Amino acid sequence: MSKPARHVFVCSQNRPAGHPRGACQHKGGGEVLQAFWGELQSRNCWDKVAVTYSGCLGPCDRGTNVVVYPEGVMYSNVTTADVGEIFDSHLLGGTPVSRLLTPEGVW
Amino acid sequence: MSKPARHVFVCSQNRPAGHPRGACQHKGGGEVLQAFWGELQSRNCWDKVAVTYSGCLGPCDRGTNVVVYPEGVMYSNVTTADVGEIFDSHLLGGTPVSRLLTPEGVW
Repeated sequence: MSKPARHVFVCSQNRPAGHPRGACQHKGGGEVLQAFWGELQSRNCWDKVAVTYSGCLGPCDRGTNVVVYPEGVMYSNVTTADVGEIFDSHLLGGTPVSRLLTPEGVW
Repeated sequence: MSKPARHVFVCSQNRPAGHPRGACQHKGGGEVLQAFWGELQSRNCWDKVAVTYSGCLGPCDRGTNVVVYPEGVMYSNVTTADVGEIFDSHLLGGTPVSRLLTPEGVW
């Protein structure tokens, strides 16, 4: 891929079932990643947005976590239902989705 | 982790042996990731730098690839021998390591 305007990293960390920290992969992280890739495909905006899976982003209790650069905006408790809005508002529109922001102090 | 000044993503993509694209994991990506985490530990600079593994960053033939945000600087052909310099010069010093930059047009 060429350098995108915005790069989304979707936490896809896995842990054993019952692990006290939990893991984004148990909270729909895999489905959220696929939803981001699906939006990328359907919008054909590869020149503007890149979507990559990542390891643990920190606040596991709030997963699925997603971080968007270059802004360094983190979203928590992201579900597949939120992905279209993140694309429209933030990734293509430039305005972060405030209701999903990871609280200050956590990130 | 709290929001870092710089966030390093180290490609840790794996593929079957003999795959035509290759994979950073076959080019020392795992060792490079561990080297970044080792520098983070020994420098105790968790407030300034975050290190996370990631999926494929694109130019597999140039692995191991590493991307640093918020600058969006990508490095290619990174080995464990380069990690200390990337920390000193770029992650803590603010000056990217020009000899390792992924060529323009590729990223």
